[in-house]
Amino acid sequence: MHRSRIGVVLIDHPGESYEVAAEFWAAAHASPRPDKCPTAESPYEELRHLPGGVELALQRTGPGTPPRVHLDIETDDVEAELARVTALGATIVERRESHAILQDPGGLLFCVVPVQNPDAFEASATSWP
Amino acid sequence: MHRSRIGVVLIDHPGESYEVAAEFWAAAHASPRPDKCPTAESPYEELRHLPGGVELALQRTGPGTPPRVHLDIETDDVEAELARVTALGATIVERRESHAILQDPGGLLFCVVPVQNPDAFEASATSWP
Repeated sequence: MHRSRIGVVLIDHPGESYEVAAEFWAAAHASPRPDKCPTAESPYEELRHLPGGVELALQRTGPGTPPRVHLDIETDDVEAELARVTALGATIVERRESHAILQDPGGLLFCVVPVQNPDAFEASATSWP
Repeated sequence: MHRSRIGVVLIDHPGESYEVAAEFWAAAHASPRPDKCPTAESPYEELRHLPGGVELALQRTGPGTPPRVHLDIETDDVEAELARVTALGATIVERRESHAILQDPGGLLFCVVPVQNPDAFEASATSWP
């Protein structure tokens, strides 16, 4: 038995538009911006959580990539969750060290990642038999 | 003084991939699908809410449109919210009867809509002076 939930909403922008977009979403969402800028090693910037402890984050993506929003499913067992969502029709696009990038059956990108926010995960994850 | 919050996460798919994608996300999120199918007049299908009363919905978009996720900002005063977010750098792409489609400063689509989920809105909307 493992658990998962839609745990992160990411707003992705390439370097060209990242800074203006990050300023916009931080102000629009009444969120401070972290002191640390996103880097190639850690391209994420966490904004104020959405209610229910769903994380809202910005990601600086590669040059020329389109701006987009994508969802992360956080789970206490990445392998089991990958087996579950691929059985439902998703396909794995890329494996990274601790997470995976997938497409839904219509080609929409999403990720499966380890638990990012333990308290909120405990409160609202779904258990899969 | 008006209020707003990021209130809806929408998964958009064109008709070609809508049904397989809708089945996938409903199963992935342990959500029943509504009895009523989306139509041209009402292209939305609401899944089980995310924690905190953020709505998760599917939208059947026009033929050939790319699959994507977009965010809706729900507000108790659409005009005031449009003034606020355009002052922050967003641009209005299209006005509809009760809502508007916008782009953030990096070209990412989002919408400003009237309050969709009153109880959750009351609990977590931000007040703007």
